[in-house]
Amino acid sequence: MLKHNTYFDGRVQSLGFERNALKATVGVIAPGEYHFNTGAAERMTVVSGELRARLKDGAWQTYAQGSSFEIPANSGFDVQAVGGPAAYLCEFLGG
Amino acid sequence: MLKHNTYFDGRVQSLGFERNALKATVGVIAPGEYHFNTGAAERMTVVSGELRARLKDGAWQTYAQGSSFEIPANSGFDVQAVGGPAAYLCEFLGG
Repeated sequence: MLKHNTYFDGRVQSLGFERNALKATVGVIAPGEYHFNTGAAERMTVVSGELRARLKDGAWQTYAQGSSFEIPANSGFDVQAVGGPAAYLCEFLGG
Repeated sequence: MLKHNTYFDGRVQSLGFERNALKATVGVIAPGEYHFNTGAAERMTVVSGELRARLKDGAWQTYAQGSSFEIPANSGFDVQAVGGPAAYLCEFLGG
């Protein structure tokens, strides 16, 4: 029921779950920069720490604990954990 | 750097990390009831879904998304995920 995912040699890991037909993961990003592509649109919420993210053709923005950003479907984003690992909630929208 | 933990035949899983000397995990609890013991004191925050928890000698209380409860050191608590899996942030206090 819960699925463990690992990316970038274990530097990004997540746990997938589904509730009320909403698919989501919680995960942790180790310091560094990573690129993810999206299928369904996603909402990323910073649960602990701080993330920087850059949507396709966008500028880097900083997201503090408690803040969110959304990535369109069939797109992608670069993400950095700053100053230490950061934990996030990723909700898959309309997917 | 990130540590994957699995409990109760995979029905509770977490990812451990450390930031600014604060140890923490993010995890997911599948529907059911579980008991955990504490070493260091812990603060549990519901990241997605809903948890019910009962501290030692206490009554069951419901914690909605965004709410927190703390468990003393060297104690324990029972926890239930209600209505589907719930995601949490667990911060280890003073440990």
